[in-house]
Amino acid sequence: MPRTKKTRSAKVGLPPGSLVHVGEKLSEKSKISLIHYDELSLQEMEIQQISGCASFLKKTGVNWISFQGLPEIPVLEELGLSFGLHPLTLEDILNTDQRPKMEDYGDYLYIVLRMFHPESPDRGELKSEQISILFGANFVLSFEEKDTGTFETIRERIRNTKGRLRKSGPDSLAHALMDAVVDHYFLLLENLEERIEGMEEDLVKAPSAGFLNTLQGLKKKMILLRKSLWPLREMITSLERSESPLINKSTLLYVRDIYDHTIHIIDTLETFRDMLSGMLDIYLSTISNRMNEVMKVLTVIATLFMPLTFVAGIYGMNFKYMPELEWRWGYAMAWVLMLAIAGGMLLYFRKKNWW
Amino acid sequence: MPRTKKTRSAKVGLPPGSLVHVGEKLSEKSKISLIHYDELSLQEMEIQQISGCASFLKKTGVNWISFQGLPEIPVLEELGLSFGLHPLTLEDILNTDQRPKMEDYGDYLYIVLRMFHPESPDRGELKSEQISILFGANFVLSFEEKDTGTFETIRERIRNTKGRLRKSGPDSLAHALMDAVVDHYFLLLENLEERIEGMEEDLVKAPSAGFLNTLQGLKKKMILLRKSLWPLREMITSLERSESPLINKSTLLYVRDIYDHTIHIIDTLETFRDMLSGMLDIYLSTISNRMNEVMKVLTVIATLFMPLTFVAGIYGMNFKYMPELEWRWGYAMAWVLMLAIAGGMLLYFRKKNWW
Amino acid sequence: MPRTKKTRSAKVGLPPGSLVHVGEKLSEKSKISLIHYDELSLQEMEIQQISGCASFLKKTGVNWISFQGLPEIPVLEELGLSFGLHPLTLEDILNTDQRPKMEDYGDYLYIVLRMFHPESPDRGELKSEQISILFGANFVLSFEEKDTGTFETIRERIRNTKGRLRKSGPDSLAHALMDAVVDHYFLLLENLEERIEGMEEDLVKAPSAGFLNTLQGLKKKMILLRKSLWPLREMITSLERSESPLINKSTLLYVRDIYDHTIHIIDTLETFRDMLSGMLDIYLSTISNRMNEVMKVLTVIATLFMPLTFVAGIYGMNFKYMPELEWRWGYAMAWVLMLAIAGGMLLYFRKKNWW
Amino acid sequence: MPRTKKTRSAKVGLPPGSLVHVGEKLSEKSKISLIHYDELSLQEMEIQQISGCASFLKKTGVNWISFQGLPEIPVLEELGLSFGLHPLTLEDILNTDQRPKMEDYGDYLYIVLRMFHPESPDRGELKSEQISILFGANFVLSFEEKDTGTFETIRERIRNTKGRLRKSGPDSLAHALMDAVVDHYFLLLENLEERIEGMEEDLVKAPSAGFLNTLQGLKKKMILLRKSLWPLREMITSLERSESPLINKSTLLYVRDIYDHTIHIIDTLETFRDMLSGMLDIYLSTISNRMNEVMKVLTVIATLFMPLTFVAGIYGMNFKYMPELEWRWGYAMAWVLMLAIAGGMLLYFRKKNWW
Amino acid sequence: MPRTKKTRSAKVGLPPGSLVHVGEKLSEKSKISLIHYDELSLQEMEIQQISGCASFLKKTGVNWISFQGLPEIPVLEELGLSFGLHPLTLEDILNTDQRPKMEDYGDYLYIVLRMFHPESPDRGELKSEQISILFGANFVLSFEEKDTGTFETIRERIRNTKGRLRKSGPDSLAHALMDAVVDHYFLLLENLEERIEGMEEDLVKAPSAGFLNTLQGLKKKMILLRKSLWPLREMITSLERSESPLINKSTLLYVRDIYDHTIHIIDTLETFRDMLSGMLDIYLSTISNRMNEVMKVLTVIATLFMPLTFVAGIYGMNFKYMPELEWRWGYAMAWVLMLAIAGGMLLYFRKKNWW
Ligand SMILES: [Mg+2]
Ligand SMILES: [Mg+2]
Ligand SMILES: [Mg+2]
Ligand SMILES: [Mg+2]
Ligand SMILES: [Mg+2]
Ligand SMILES: [Mg+2]
Ligand SMILES: [Mg+2]
Ligand SMILES: [Mg+2]
Ligand SMILES: [Mg+2]
Ligand SMILES: [Mg+2]
Ligand SMILES: [Mg+2]
Ligand SMILES: [Mg+2]
Ligand SMILES: [Mg+2]
Ligand SMILES: [Mg+2]
Ligand SMILES: [Mg+2]
Ligand SMILES: [Mg+2]
Ligand SMILES: [Mg+2]
Ligand SMILES: [Mg+2]
Ligand SMILES: [Mg+2]
Ligand SMILES: [Mg+2]
Ligand SMILES: [Mg+2]
Ligand SMILES: [Mg+2]
Ligand SMILES: [Mg+2]
Ligand SMILES: [Mg+2]
Ligand SMILES: [Mg+2]
Ligand SMILES: [Mg+2]
Ligand SMILES: [Mg+2]
Ligand SMILES: [Mg+2]
Ligand SMILES: [Mg+2]
Ligand SMILES: [Mg+2]
Repeated sequence: MPRTKKTRSAKVGLPPGSLVHVGEKLSEKSKISLIHYDELSLQEMEIQQISGCASFLKKTGVNWISFQGLPEIPVLEELGLSFGLHPLTLEDILNTDQRPKMEDYGDYLYIVLRMFHPESPDRGELKSEQISILFGANFVLSFEEKDTGTFETIRERIRNTKGRLRKSGPDSLAHALMDAVVDHYFLLLENLEERIEGMEEDLVKAPSAGFLNTLQGLKKKMILLRKSLWPLREMITSLERSESPLINKSTLLYVRDIYDHTIHIIDTLETFRDMLSGMLDIYLSTISNRMNEVMKVLTVIATLFMPLTFVAGIYGMNFKYMPELEWRWGYAMAWVLMLAIAGGMLLYFRKKNWW
Repeated sequence: MPRTKKTRSAKVGLPPGSLVHVGEKLSEKSKISLIHYDELSLQEMEIQQISGCASFLKKTGVNWISFQGLPEIPVLEELGLSFGLHPLTLEDILNTDQRPKMEDYGDYLYIVLRMFHPESPDRGELKSEQISILFGANFVLSFEEKDTGTFETIRERIRNTKGRLRKSGPDSLAHALMDAVVDHYFLLLENLEERIEGMEEDLVKAPSAGFLNTLQGLKKKMILLRKSLWPLREMITSLERSESPLINKSTLLYVRDIYDHTIHIIDTLETFRDMLSGMLDIYLSTISNRMNEVMKVLTVIATLFMPLTFVAGIYGMNFKYMPELEWRWGYAMAWVLMLAIAGGMLLYFRKKNWW
Repeated sequence: MPRTKKTRSAKVGLPPGSLVHVGEKLSEKSKISLIHYDELSLQEMEIQQISGCASFLKKTGVNWISFQGLPEIPVLEELGLSFGLHPLTLEDILNTDQRPKMEDYGDYLYIVLRMFHPESPDRGELKSEQISILFGANFVLSFEEKDTGTFETIRERIRNTKGRLRKSGPDSLAHALMDAVVDHYFLLLENLEERIEGMEEDLVKAPSAGFLNTLQGLKKKMILLRKSLWPLREMITSLERSESPLINKSTLLYVRDIYDHTIHIIDTLETFRDMLSGMLDIYLSTISNRMNEVMKVLTVIATLFMPLTFVAGIYGMNFKYMPELEWRWGYAMAWVLMLAIAGGMLLYFRKKNWW
Repeated sequence: MPRTKKTRSAKVGLPPGSLVHVGEKLSEKSKISLIHYDELSLQEMEIQQISGCASFLKKTGVNWISFQGLPEIPVLEELGLSFGLHPLTLEDILNTDQRPKMEDYGDYLYIVLRMFHPESPDRGELKSEQISILFGANFVLSFEEKDTGTFETIRERIRNTKGRLRKSGPDSLAHALMDAVVDHYFLLLENLEERIEGMEEDLVKAPSAGFLNTLQGLKKKMILLRKSLWPLREMITSLERSESPLINKSTLLYVRDIYDHTIHIIDTLETFRDMLSGMLDIYLSTISNRMNEVMKVLTVIATLFMPLTFVAGIYGMNFKYMPELEWRWGYAMAWVLMLAIAGGMLLYFRKKNWW
Repeated sequence: MPRTKKTRSAKVGLPPGSLVHVGEKLSEKSKISLIHYDELSLQEMEIQQISGCASFLKKTGVNWISFQGLPEIPVLEELGLSFGLHPLTLEDILNTDQRPKMEDYGDYLYIVLRMFHPESPDRGELKSEQISILFGANFVLSFEEKDTGTFETIRERIRNTKGRLRKSGPDSLAHALMDAVVDHYFLLLENLEERIEGMEEDLVKAPSAGFLNTLQGLKKKMILLRKSLWPLREMITSLERSESPLINKSTLLYVRDIYDHTIHIIDTLETFRDMLSGMLDIYLSTISNRMNEVMKVLTVIATLFMPLTFVAGIYGMNFKYMPELEWRWGYAMAWVLMLAIAGGMLLYFRKKNWW
């Protein structure tokens, strides 16, 4: 998400395409693995040195090189030379605060996604990483900031000879990677939903003092998600409309499927937002009602005793000639008078529904 | 409408096109029926086994297979093979939390609708089901989640030899099914209208304590409906603009008619929303006015008695030399003084319109 | 404007094109009149039976059949057969709760308008009727719900041999009918303007208790008008862009003129809305200021007497040894003390501008 | 600006193109002057009778006829005949409540502008007039409602042989006229800016009672300006995109320059609006803070004296056996007690920061 | 930023293209320097007289003339003649209150940018200058209002023989200049972020009285930035879509990179705005809660003592026959009664959670 890390400003004055890591470094070491497959064969290996890697690539089938943890700058430069990557692509891979986008460089497409981790959304800030995916005629490159096993299920599907992936090209693999990232949003949505439902129950019972802060915190998270989801949607739309020969027509149906998921996620988020704003309204009106109720009761009590105290004050006066004071039943009469006043006022208040 | 059911997350990691039921299961068993008709002939039957079903289909006329209750996964797979359906279509039929959409798969069009049941809108949440409609050159497939007789009137129209349906193709039948779903919104709107009118009457009399909650509940329902109506409108627009050869030009006029209905429904909902928000404004200002009125009256009373009590306090003092206390008419004078003060203040308050 | 009449739901299950009157029936009988004219000749007659009517039509010139009051269903069906009208057109003529629209049926254009009657806008709801206009190569059909003489001035213009209408075709007549309907909005706007200006004067003097309700009522009317004006604008735009051969190029300039009027009306309404919302702001802040003023004065009074009453209370204590009570000028001193306290507080309050 | 003058409704029923003056009549007499110029020659004259005017026109160069004050209806009709103007154009020239627009009539372009006079914006309503500009192959017609010398500088520029105007055609002159009108907005903006800055200073010192009304008045003026500026912008855009042969390509750069000015004016107005709304927020929160401050201090005073008065009340009781009353230092003790209570409460209030 | 400087109005009546400095003059003297370079050669010189300058230009490579401080009007006119610049371009260079834009004059492109200086954003208003960039087939002209070394790093890059700039044309240099300006926004964003984080900490502790003003000040700055960023984005988009032969296709990738930066900056600003508005909500609700808390406690105290004072008043009455006054334990009983009342009320208040 948009954040002004110091390093963004550290790049002021540098030419575009300068390789400087921007954003928090999430992982120190980078694990590089290569999978080559076509319908019939499959080959997996860990790569130590990127310089020799090009010789392993095959002309046909799909060569998938995945980086778990961003590579060191020399490794990235080497990679750029081997695959003919544009300096701006390399720069973007290292700038981990970008919004989702798709760029067509002719020989390859470059896709940036944001992956949100659902593990502990109820505490602190949302954790996310930037996922870069590049694919060309016979290769796919994927870059994760951390090794969190996001793409493990896809490796499994590739190993399975019967899967659709084995029969199709790099665009299908790229789709599968994107799909895996987008699917993770559903986990996050469920976490959020549970918390919102918890808050709804709280609201019915008695909202605690921290209610407003929790609500603001959730709202902040949704704004964050929203700012990543709208460009995601835009990106998928431009992928759908792209006329790159690197994308098979049959893959487009699958891209549309991710589009559906994205819209579904956005719709759900909007619903959450509506729920939060409804809860805020109810909370505020509850608080205000309660305050009004308190003030009303207290003021009724105070108002009730004003005339009574006045009556008591009257008969506390020291005039020499006050006939009532001498009466035998004067005191009783004063009580009767005061009770009558109190009773009359209470009846009136009750009738007016003030009490 | 958008909801994160557990099963959405259960699909994380699965390839697209995996058949898993997503959403609440509304019906356990699925009733399958086949109607074949053209202008001259009509044939109806219940189907037990989908595998043999293809042999019943006729090359000409319309073959309508309707599923009341979603089919079991093997049945769906069988169906997919018989009619050449894309795995993503089959997946969408089972994922019952989708927003309305239309997808052109070349050989067939796939339409998703949301059907709202009007039966008891005044209690609990809105009940809805997902309706899927597919149609190709000589067939229509329809999928309801529950057997609620939604399409019974259409079966009747088909049985009637003179109806327009008998003379036209699968696109007309698909239109009729869509029309039946959209028409049901009118029933729901009427229920909502009655409730809103009831609330308006309440508001004039005396809004009960639950007014705000009822209003929020209605608002929530309208948001839900709205989130299903805008994509519906979008879908019908794309149907109108579709250049699929599966849609007859004369059918387009009927599609435009549904478009009119959808806009009409949306307009009505917007009117409802305006009414609700107007009612909320009046309610809030009523509450606030009443509170102000109460506080004002009570404060006037309290303020009135402050000076009186002060006067009483004065003559309650125990100074040895207080001439007034000795006066013959001192007590009467005190009363006159107090009544004068009270009268003066009341006049002033009345003049200022505070009381 | 959008309303869910019972009859809308009564049509659930009926095929599209079913002729059922939807909406309130504004007139029981329908008057049918035919005018035929070209540059040289003019012929007027009342029609009793629509079946024979076709024989009166002439190939050249303009045949205008106008219905004042919606026709009975058999009459409408007869008319549909004579002029080759689509069932959906006939249905729309009877469904009097539609939003303005234009539909091109090839042989004829179908236009729906909403006509607001300005007669008594200050009481009850706005009264409106649906006007349907159809025109083809040599005919114009117009349908009013009530016979209110809306089109009488146009009949006069036709009778006048020199008018532009006599020299031009059905599109010009249709334009004239639309223009007459749109012009009526100006009358309504003037009524509304007078009422708003009245309210502005009220606001300066002293807003009565019903101010808020009157304002909400006006707002409601404007929402109603707005919901009819935006589709009207849209309709005129699509008429302008229509490529129907039924519309002469020279007529387009006149359509643009109506477009101007519509925009003018919309702009005026928006101005009204801004004025109303400005008045609401001033009203609310006036109310709140007044309340604050009252509470402040009352609280100042109460606060002023608290210390005084306290002093009186002090010297009302019954301690045996209270030197002040014995003093010759004790009572006077108490008064001086109290007046000093009161004066000091008043000065302080005045300085702080609280009073 | 949109206003429902009586005359708008007076035109109900009249055919389009009827010449009736709509709007306030700003000037009684109309001054007509003709300037003919090309690169080498210049000729100026006042015109008394429009009927003979056509004979003065030259085939080449630019003939500019300017009306200062709207012409009488017969003059306008004569003019229409001489220059082949459409009746709708003539009507629009007389309807002085139109929004800015551009209309292409083939032989000529018709432009409507609104000119705001900056002279005394701080009192009463904004004064404006409608400026109509028409230009064809060899002529420009301009219509002002009042003779306020708006175009005098342009006459000067024409008289200057070296100016760009003398070398170019009617489109350049039309541009110069439009530019003169748009430039006048800057004068108005400066007036508004001064007033807003004055209000900002007021706000820092002490907002007077009329603050809110002044602010609402300014807001109203901005809404008025805004409603004229957005269509102006739209109009210039359509002029830029117009493919009329009457506009030279080199003139388009100058049209873009006016577009820049318009956007600049709109941006400035939006800034003003933001400033006003920021000032309103600060004003309201200042008012509310002050009120709260007052209420808090007053309530603290009242609360402080409640317990003290209670203590005084205790020792004002008349029980026979109250040991404290007999004590030698009872009275002193009561004072100590009361001062202790008062001091304790004050300390507490101070600690809580209530005071 | 849009501002109505006096000079804007001073230009009323002048023809477009009149050279008048509009806006604050930021620098008195203008330093002119020329750099000529191609892949192999590099030549730098300071220019005293613009008239002879044209003779130094070379046909091939890039000639970059940079003005640090806006040139005097005669210098600008000379320049206009030498490079064939349109008068409107020259005018825009001097009008330093323009919004970012791009204009294609055929022989050259003209770009206006706004450069914000980050030096002391926490005090007073934002400081900014207008940067104009023109480039043609073999030249780049850049105009800064002040000599603040913005482009020094680019001079360094040119001096470095290996840089991309030396191998490419004027469009690349123009891109580098734009990139330098846009990069400076990141510095400003960081300043803003630090201040916002400081305010967030303040909010958790105790918001000072100036909180609202600081927040309004920041909001104002963001509106200012926003109004310059949206047209910047628009401008870059039109640059990307421009079909000018002056822009190399390979440069477009770099333009897209700046576009990314701009969107990133806008997104960050929007996030700031959301944070500010969230902080405002929390601040207002904190203030209101605190006020409510105070009023509640004070009212509880007052209410508590009303009945007690009443009891004291009762036994302060002077009736001759008041049995309680004679009782041995009457006084003690009165205390017990008052303590019981106080205790009961406190319990009730506590139970009701009012206290
Ligand atoms: Mg976004
Ligand atoms: Mg956005
Ligand atoms: Mg974008
Ligand atoms: Mg976006
Ligand atoms: Mg799907
Ligand atoms: Mg979906
Ligand atoms: Mg969409
Ligand atoms: Mg939606
Ligand atoms: Mg939306
Ligand atoms: Mg939609
Ligand atoms: Mg219809
Ligand atoms: Mg409809
Ligand atoms: Mg809308
Ligand atoms: Mg509408
Ligand atoms: Mg519309
Ligand atoms: Mg529409
Ligand atoms: Mg007109
Ligand atoms: Mg108009
Ligand atoms: Mg709008
Ligand atoms: Mg407008
Ligand atoms: Mg506009
Ligand atoms: Mg428009
Ligand atoms: Mg300019
Ligand atoms: Mg400008
Ligand atoms: Mg806007
Ligand atoms: Mg802007
Ligand atoms: Mg723009
Ligand atoms: Mg903009
Ligand atoms: Mg980049
Ligand atoms: Mg970026």
